[in-house]
Amino acid sequence: MGKYHGTSSTVLRPRTTKEVSEIVKYCNEKRIGIVPQGGNTGLVGGSVPTGRGELVVSLGSMNKVRHFDPVSGMCTLVADAGCVLQSLTDYLAPHNHIMPVEFGAKGSCMIGGNCATNAGGVRLLRYGSLHGTVLGLEVVLPDGTILDQLTTLRKDNTGYDLKQLFIGSEGTLGIITGVSILTPPAPQASSNALLALPSFDSVLPLFKRAKRELSEILSAFEFIDRGAYDLSVRHGQGRGMSPEEAGGAECFVLIETSGGRREHDEEKLSDLLEHLLSEDKPLINTGVLSQDATQFSNIWSLREGITEAVSKEGKAYKYDISIPLSAFKEVVDATKDRLREKGLLGPHAVKEVVGYGHIGDGNLHLNVVAAAYTSEIEAALEPFVYELVGKYKGSISAEHGLGVMKAHALHYSKNGISIEWMRRIKDLFDPNGIMNPGKVLPPASGASHEPSLKNTGSGRVA
Amino acid sequence: MGKYHGTSSTVLRPRTTKEVSEIVKYCNEKRIGIVPQGGNTGLVGGSVPTGRGELVVSLGSMNKVRHFDPVSGMCTLVADAGCVLQSLTDYLAPHNHIMPVEFGAKGSCMIGGNCATNAGGVRLLRYGSLHGTVLGLEVVLPDGTILDQLTTLRKDNTGYDLKQLFIGSEGTLGIITGVSILTPPAPQASSNALLALPSFDSVLPLFKRAKRELSEILSAFEFIDRGAYDLSVRHGQGRGMSPEEAGGAECFVLIETSGGRREHDEEKLSDLLEHLLSEDKPLINTGVLSQDATQFSNIWSLREGITEAVSKEGKAYKYDISIPLSAFKEVVDATKDRLREKGLLGPHAVKEVVGYGHIGDGNLHLNVVAAAYTSEIEAALEPFVYELVGKYKGSISAEHGLGVMKAHALHYSKNGISIEWMRRIKDLFDPNGIMNPGKVLPPASGASHEPSLKNTGSGRVA
Repeated sequence: MGKYHGTSSTVLRPRTTKEVSEIVKYCNEKRIGIVPQGGNTGLVGGSVPTGRGELVVSLGSMNKVRHFDPVSGMCTLVADAGCVLQSLTDYLAPHNHIMPVEFGAKGSCMIGGNCATNAGGVRLLRYGSLHGTVLGLEVVLPDGTILDQLTTLRKDNTGYDLKQLFIGSEGTLGIITGVSILTPPAPQASSNALLALPSFDSVLPLFKRAKRELSEILSAFEFIDRGAYDLSVRHGQGRGMSPEEAGGAECFVLIETSGGRREHDEEKLSDLLEHLLSEDKPLINTGVLSQDATQFSNIWSLREGITEAVSKEGKAYKYDISIPLSAFKEVVDATKDRLREKGLLGPHAVKEVVGYGHIGDGNLHLNVVAAAYTSEIEAALEPFVYELVGKYKGSISAEHGLGVMKAHALHYSKNGISIEWMRRIKDLFDPNGIMNPGKVLPPASGASHEPSLKNTGSGRVA
Repeated sequence: MGKYHGTSSTVLRPRTTKEVSEIVKYCNEKRIGIVPQGGNTGLVGGSVPTGRGELVVSLGSMNKVRHFDPVSGMCTLVADAGCVLQSLTDYLAPHNHIMPVEFGAKGSCMIGGNCATNAGGVRLLRYGSLHGTVLGLEVVLPDGTILDQLTTLRKDNTGYDLKQLFIGSEGTLGIITGVSILTPPAPQASSNALLALPSFDSVLPLFKRAKRELSEILSAFEFIDRGAYDLSVRHGQGRGMSPEEAGGAECFVLIETSGGRREHDEEKLSDLLEHLLSEDKPLINTGVLSQDATQFSNIWSLREGITEAVSKEGKAYKYDISIPLSAFKEVVDATKDRLREKGLLGPHAVKEVVGYGHIGDGNLHLNVVAAAYTSEIEAALEPFVYELVGKYKGSISAEHGLGVMKAHALHYSKNGISIEWMRRIKDLFDPNGIMNPGKVLPPASGASHEPSLKNTGSGRVA
């Protein structure tokens, strides 16, 4: 996005957990801030130095699979934090297993970063969050201690589940160096369909119908509003429907099924479409069911390509929020109205306000596409969007974390007591404040709470 | 089991979170220990006072459903901690949803206790652990503060996921007063089958076959060794096979499927049985497929009734462990050998050593059934069993927690650094040590680390 720029004099690329430990121990003694970095694909600036003289510790050289036992029946993968997600997917493919997470950034993002940011993605509906699928972590704590909780046991009920604290901590409590994760069996068959809906009001009833008829094989239910659809088509991101088919649809839904037997799955999905189209007041205008692997990819590309289409169109303000499903359209519309009121809607300022996301998880991606990043637009959007989310008791970050972008806005989603306890946990693990300073937690109120770090000088890094 | 007896002068039954808060605040000021108690169905004595003058705080009067919105599409249940699991299952039934957990103790155990102990159960294979299905908790912290993290959002990535610390903390960090939990749609159809296996060596290949052919509809895969089967049959717990069918089977497997369309599910399950029986070297001797609801229940009763059968047979030493699937039989056999060596196998001492459990989770229930609890038997079993588990890098408690029974044995499953950090977390939340003292963590080495509690006098309870 070109939104965050950090400077650092030094990037270290340790090859072993012991090297990470030594680096951290040294930095802790010298009070030098550390920014752990995986694939550097985050949206909220969590992996970018903030000008406190931090060193960057890149995990990219720790990229080995440590263990996978295809015959034990448990199928747990243990890997270095710096393994690129796609490389793990490739590693598992011959064993007929998959990673429980999948993102557009899979070619660059790393499993350690996925865990540190508790990344969501399109498979969450089916396989649940990393809080459930990660079985163990190896973490270098801020004093250099190696906390080895790299178990491969599916069940281990012996005391506090400390690893959970690091999932979603964005590198502020320690550096994840190893991950043990459940790998589901690869589905024998996957199908998808793109549905054009007359109005947003059909989305929720359609979701309930799909859940009932597709049940356990429903593996994705993605919402794409008209603006996002047109943007993706315009920038050549996959193929959806013909213009005639898309017609006057107000929004679209991508349904994916994954299951164990192709004929059963296809029967369920085509029955669903048939039922939908034969109703008196159909919930959909039309639907395209993929007939082969190419069509399957084309439909997915349309959805996954929205991010790229947005980047091609302009500079994007991206809000990744959890709100009630029924409010998805209201939030997009309210944001448009707000920008219109401020005279900021139009080719000179904001070109598009689009919404898409994971209906199954209540997760909307609200994208405001502007000609350029300006302080007027930002002032019109923030805290406006956060307040809107707060009104719905939603989350200001559903799956992309807080980073530097949203640390100050944490109070819209978490109450004071929760923030206070987050701070105590931070102080317990990292009393010198060396781990990813300035991220996740807002500056403490009152005087300079933040421990002062030594500035090591800086040279610009990407 | 009649194994744990506690004494306390006082049992308090608060009706609101605010009352819990006031009780805890008072006890914290006066340094009075508190034992939080749900359904009191645990196996490890976690809900029993230990003679430190603790009060019992029973959550049983907080038993209201706070919120369930069947139309929103997210289907999150918010309930008081004292709701009995079965009552929540009943509440959800008309809405066609189910609880993601299910236990033999469902008629007594409470959802707050389920979360506090991170209870596992037969649905874990399908719906994952409570670390994934619990969306939010309300917890009264040891100083009386109410930590409200009772979100109903499926995804909320705003900082440290503090609620995770309380899941599995067995009341040692605070009292869970409210729970927000995902409720899956009720399966449209469930089937099960009981399979008789010629030898234990068939279990793992059978599990892999079942996973491949049944895929997403496989909802339980339970192992029952011959001893456990015979015990359950002898005490009239459900009906399995005829003696001829059971024949010389070394062990049994119960397979359950749950899915969205009966004809598809039944086809998958009967195809599996047919494939298994038509092989040159069949993995199974025979299989019984349930034909109706009664047969379905009978097969489950056989498995769920093992606990009761064990109680009828004698006094049980129960070990709930995670080990590699391949070691299930070795562990049962090694335990038998050990007792035989010590002259403790026979009607005078240990009558049966049986194994059963959740293959899908790597969780074996090792039950040693004795004529009476004696120190000789205990000395023969502990730390022998824990050492055996440690040898396999397993867990000494897969799903039943540590309580008082296993706190001292924690080091067999957790390394020193992990235990040290558990202790720091305990000290951070509960510096006066009032919350469920003597549970989970072993006494600190060295001098009297444990804060001294006021003894309030005691009268025997339960």
